[in-house]
Amino acid sequence: MEATSRHVLAEFYGSPAEILNNVKIIEKEICRAALAAGAEIREVVFHKFAPQGVSGVLIISESHISIHTWPELNYASVDVYTCGTTVDPWDAVRSLKENLQAEKAEGIEVLRGDGIPHKTKEEII
Amino acid sequence: MEATSRHVLAEFYGSPAEILNNVKIIEKEICRAALAAGAEIREVVFHKFAPQGVSGVLIISESHISIHTWPELNYASVDVYTCGTTVDPWDAVRSLKENLQAEKAEGIEVLRGDGIPHKTKEEII
Repeated sequence: MEATSRHVLAEFYGSPAEILNNVKIIEKEICRAALAAGAEIREVVFHKFAPQGVSGVLIISESHISIHTWPELNYASVDVYTCGTTVDPWDAVRSLKENLQAEKAEGIEVLRGDGIPHKTKEEII
Repeated sequence: MEATSRHVLAEFYGSPAEILNNVKIIEKEICRAALAAGAEIREVVFHKFAPQGVSGVLIISESHISIHTWPELNYASVDVYTCGTTVDPWDAVRSLKENLQAEKAEGIEVLRGDGIPHKTKEEII
Protein backbone atom coordinates (compact mmCIF):
# COMPACT_ATOMS: atom_id res chain seq x y z
CA MET A 1 0.00 0.00 0.00
CA GLU A 2 1.38 3.40 -0.92
CA ALA A 3 0.10 5.18 2.15
CA THR A 4 2.92 3.86 4.31
CA SER A 5 3.90 6.51 6.84
CA ARG A 6 6.33 7.00 9.69
CA HIS A 7 4.91 7.90 13.09
CA VAL A 8 7.26 8.87 15.90
CA LEU A 9 5.85 8.82 19.45
CA ALA A 10 8.25 10.79 21.64
CA GLU A 11 8.42 11.75 25.30
CA PHE A 12 10.32 14.78 26.62
CA TYR A 13 11.50 15.01 30.23
CA GLY A 14 12.96 17.81 32.28
CA SER A 15 11.74 20.89 30.41
CA PRO A 16 11.14 24.04 32.47
CA ALA A 17 7.52 24.36 33.61
CA GLU A 18 7.35 27.98 32.45
CA ILE A 19 8.08 26.85 28.90
CA LEU A 20 5.60 23.97 28.98
CA ASN A 21 2.83 26.17 30.35
CA ASN A 22 3.26 28.97 27.80
CA VAL A 23 0.98 28.35 24.85
CA LYS A 24 2.73 30.98 22.70
CA ILE A 25 6.14 29.40 23.21
CA ILE A 26 4.82 25.88 22.60
CA GLU A 27 3.09 26.96 19.38
CA LYS A 28 6.25 28.73 18.19
CA GLU A 29 8.47 25.73 18.96
CA ILE A 30 6.15 23.19 17.35
CA CYS A 31 6.06 25.33 14.19
CA ARG A 32 9.84 25.68 14.30
CA ALA A 33 10.22 21.90 14.67
CA ALA A 34 7.92 21.31 11.69
CA LEU A 35 9.94 23.67 9.53
CA ALA A 36 13.22 22.17 10.78
CA ALA A 37 12.00 18.82 9.47
CA GLY A 38 10.98 20.36 6.13
CA ALA A 39 7.24 19.95 6.69
CA GLU A 40 4.62 22.23 5.13
CA ILE A 41 2.20 23.66 7.74
CA ARG A 42 -1.47 23.69 6.73
CA GLU A 43 -3.48 24.27 9.94
CA VAL A 44 -2.53 25.29 13.49
CA VAL A 45 -4.64 24.81 16.62
CA PHE A 46 -3.56 25.20 20.24
CA HIS A 47 -5.41 25.06 23.53
CA LYS A 48 -4.39 26.20 27.03
CA PHE A 49 -5.85 24.20 29.88
CA ALA A 50 -6.62 25.50 33.39
CA PRO A 51 -4.88 25.40 35.77
CA GLN A 52 -2.00 24.24 33.56
CA GLY A 53 -1.00 22.38 30.42
CA VAL A 54 -1.05 23.00 26.69
CA SER A 55 -2.30 20.84 23.82
CA GLY A 56 -1.68 21.68 20.21
CA VAL A 57 -1.66 20.19 16.75
CA LEU A 58 -0.31 21.19 13.37
CA ILE A 59 -1.86 19.62 10.34
CA ILE A 60 0.99 19.42 7.86
CA SER A 61 0.91 18.33 4.22
CA GLU A 62 2.69 15.18 5.41
CA SER A 63 0.11 14.42 8.21
CA HIS A 64 0.42 15.97 11.69
CA ILE A 65 2.51 16.99 14.69
CA SER A 66 0.91 17.08 18.14
CA ILE A 67 2.01 18.02 21.64
CA HIS A 68 0.55 17.69 25.12
CA THR A 69 2.37 19.22 28.08
CA TRP A 70 2.28 18.53 31.81
CA PRO A 71 4.21 21.51 33.27
CA GLU A 72 3.84 20.15 36.82
CA LEU A 73 5.81 17.06 35.75
CA ASN A 74 8.23 18.90 33.42
CA TYR A 75 6.97 16.44 30.80
CA ALA A 76 5.67 16.72 27.23
CA SER A 77 4.36 14.09 24.85
CA VAL A 78 4.85 14.61 21.11
CA ASP A 79 3.73 12.79 17.96
CA VAL A 80 5.28 13.40 14.56
CA TYR A 81 3.39 11.56 11.84
CA THR A 82 4.79 11.93 8.32
CA CYS A 83 3.90 10.36 4.99
CA GLY A 84 6.22 10.61 2.01
CA THR A 85 9.98 10.55 2.00
CA THR A 86 10.95 14.22 2.19
CA VAL A 87 10.50 14.74 5.94
CA ASP A 88 12.40 12.92 8.69
CA PRO A 89 10.18 12.98 11.80
CA TRP A 90 13.20 12.64 14.08
CA ASP A 91 14.44 16.05 12.89
CA ALA A 92 11.35 17.58 14.53
CA VAL A 93 12.04 15.60 17.72
CA ARG A 94 15.65 16.85 17.84
CA SER A 95 14.52 20.46 17.29
CA LEU A 96 12.02 20.19 20.15
CA LYS A 97 14.48 18.53 22.51
CA GLU A 98 16.77 21.52 22.11
CA ASN A 99 14.19 24.29 22.10
CA LEU A 100 11.98 22.94 24.89
CA GLN A 101 15.24 22.58 26.87
CA ALA A 102 14.45 18.95 27.66
CA GLU A 103 17.01 16.95 29.60
CA LYS A 104 16.06 13.80 27.73
CA ALA A 105 13.85 12.73 24.83
CA GLU A 106 12.98 9.16 23.95
CA GLY A 107 10.62 7.65 21.47
CA ILE A 108 9.62 4.90 19.12
CA GLU A 109 8.94 4.93 15.41
CA VAL A 110 5.84 3.08 14.23
CA LEU A 111 5.12 2.15 10.62
CA ARG A 112 1.55 2.99 9.63
CA GLY A 113 -0.62 1.99 6.68
CA ASP A 114 0.90 -1.40 6.04
CA GLY A 115 -1.04 -3.76 8.28
CA ILE A 116 -1.23 -3.55 12.05
CA PRO A 117 0.98 -0.63 13.17
CA HIS A 118 4.34 -2.01 14.21
CA LYS A 119 7.36 -0.59 15.93
CA THR A 120 10.46 -0.22 13.79
CA LYS A 121 12.88 1.79 15.90
CA GLU A 122 13.57 3.06 19.42
CA GLU A 123 15.77 6.07 20.25
CA ILE A 124 16.98 8.00 23.23
CA ILE A 125 18.18 11.49 22.36
CA MET B 1 4.36 9.50 36.78
CA GLU B 2 0.71 10.52 36.76
CA ALA B 3 0.59 11.56 33.13
CA THR B 4 0.26 7.98 31.93
CA SER B 5 -2.03 7.91 28.91
CA ARG B 6 -3.44 5.39 26.44
CA HIS B 7 -2.75 5.96 22.77
CA VAL B 8 -4.51 3.79 20.19
CA LEU B 9 -3.07 3.78 16.65
CA ALA B 10 -5.72 2.33 14.36
CA GLU B 11 -6.01 1.59 10.64
CA PHE B 12 -9.31 1.36 8.75
CA TYR B 13 -9.65 -0.53 5.48
CA GLY B 14 -12.43 -0.77 2.92
CA SER B 15 -14.35 2.44 3.56
CA PRO B 16 -16.13 4.02 0.56
CA ALA B 17 -14.00 6.67 -1.16
CA GLU B 18 -16.91 9.14 -1.20
CA ILE B 19 -17.00 9.03 2.60
CA LEU B 20 -13.24 9.35 3.02
CA ASN B 21 -13.06 12.31 0.63
CA ASN B 22 -15.90 14.28 2.24
CA VAL B 23 -14.49 16.62 4.87
CA LYS B 24 -17.93 17.36 6.33
CA ILE B 25 -18.70 13.67 6.87
CA ILE B 26 -15.24 12.97 8.31
CA GLU B 27 -15.53 15.88 10.73
CA LYS B 28 -19.01 14.76 11.80
CA GLU B 29 -17.91 11.15 12.35
CA ILE B 30 -14.78 12.05 14.28
CA CYS B 31 -16.85 14.27 16.58
CA ARG B 32 -19.41 11.47 16.93
CA ALA B 33 -16.65 9.00 17.82
CA ALA B 34 -15.24 11.37 20.44
CA LEU B 35 -18.64 11.76 22.07
CA ALA B 36 -19.28 7.99 21.86
CA ALA B 37 -16.12 7.52 23.92
CA GLY B 38 -17.21 10.16 26.42
CA ALA B 39 -14.54 12.68 25.45
CA GLU B 40 -14.95 16.45 25.81
CA ILE B 41 -14.19 18.31 22.56
CA ARG B 42 -12.14 21.52 22.94
CA GLU B 43 -10.89 22.41 19.42
CA VAL B 44 -11.72 21.15 15.92
CA VAL B 45 -9.57 21.57 12.81
CA PHE B 46 -9.98 19.84 9.45
CA HIS B 47 -8.24 20.19 6.11
CA LYS B 48 -9.22 18.95 2.64
CA PHE B 49 -6.34 18.12 0.33
CA ALA B 50 -6.34 18.37 -3.46
CA PRO B 51 -6.97 16.23 -5.38
CA GLN B 52 -8.14 14.01 -2.53
CA GLY B 53 -7.80 13.17 1.14
CA VAL B 54 -8.80 14.70 4.44
CA SER B 55 -6.81 15.36 7.60
CA GLY B 56 -8.40 16.44 10.84
CA VAL B 57 -7.78 16.67 14.54
CA LEU B 58 -9.89 17.20 17.63
CA ILE B 59 -8.20 18.48 20.72
CA ILE B 60 -10.15 16.92 23.57
CA SER B 61 -9.83 17.49 27.30
CA GLU B 62 -8.27 14.01 27.42
CA SER B 63 -5.67 14.76 24.63
CA HIS B 64 -6.55 14.29 20.91
CA ILE B 65 -8.14 12.31 18.11
CA SER B 66 -6.69 12.55 14.59
CA ILE B 67 -7.57 11.13 11.19
CA HIS B 68 -5.88 11.03 7.79
CA THR B 69 -7.73 9.54 4.83
CA TRP B 70 -6.55 8.08 1.50
CA PRO B 71 -9.83 7.77 -0.48
CA GLU B 72 -8.00 6.24 -3.45
CA LEU B 73 -6.95 3.34 -1.20
CA ASN B 74 -10.22 3.18 0.81
CA TYR B 75 -7.94 3.61 3.81
CA ALA B 76 -7.92 5.85 6.89
CA SER B 77 -5.43 6.17 9.73
CA VAL B 78 -6.71 7.22 13.17
CA ASP B 79 -5.11 8.06 16.51
CA VAL B 80 -7.04 8.23 19.76
CA TYR B 81 -4.89 9.52 22.58
CA THR B 82 -6.55 9.71 26.01
CA CYS B 83 -5.31 10.56 29.46
CA GLY B 84 -7.37 9.81 32.54
CA THR B 85 -9.62 6.84 33.16
CA THR B 86 -13.03 8.03 32.00
CA VAL B 87 -12.57 7.52 28.23
CA ASP B 88 -11.90 4.20 26.51
CA PRO B 89 -10.11 5.02 23.21
CA TRP B 90 -11.34 1.77 21.64
CA ASP B 91 -14.94 3.05 21.93
CA ALA B 92 -14.00 5.78 19.43
CA VAL B 93 -12.39 3.19 17.15
CA ARG B 94 -15.53 1.03 17.20
CA SER B 95 -17.74 4.04 16.44
CA LEU B 96 -15.57 4.98 13.47
CA LYS B 97 -15.42 1.43 12.13
CA GLU B 98 -19.20 1.40 11.94
CA ASN B 99 -19.78 4.93 10.70
CA LEU B 100 -16.96 5.07 8.16
CA GLN B 101 -18.35 1.74 6.91
CA ALA B 102 -14.92 0.12 7.15
CA GLU B 103 -14.63 -3.58 6.35
CA LYS B 104 -11.87 -3.98 8.92
CA ALA B 105 -10.15 -1.96 11.63
CA GLU B 106 -6.97 -2.95 13.41
CA GLY B 107 -4.75 -1.20 15.85
CA ILE B 108 -2.36 -1.20 18.74
CA GLU B 109 -2.53 0.49 22.11
CA VAL B 110 0.61 2.23 23.30
CA LEU B 111 1.21 3.39 26.86
CA ARG B 112 2.57 6.93 26.99
CA GLY B 113 4.22 8.97 29.72
CA ASP B 114 5.84 6.14 31.61
CA GLY B 115 9.21 5.64 29.94
CA ILE B 116 9.73 4.77 26.30
CA PRO B 117 6.28 4.32 24.68
CA HIS B 118 5.48 0.61 24.66
CA LYS B 119 2.78 -1.50 23.07
CA THR B 120 0.30 -3.03 25.45
CA LYS B 121 -2.42 -4.48 23.22
CA GLU B 122 -3.29 -5.37 19.62
CA GLU B 123 -6.84 -5.71 18.26
CA ILE B 124 -8.63 -6.49 15.04
CA ILE B 125 -12.21 -5.24 14.99
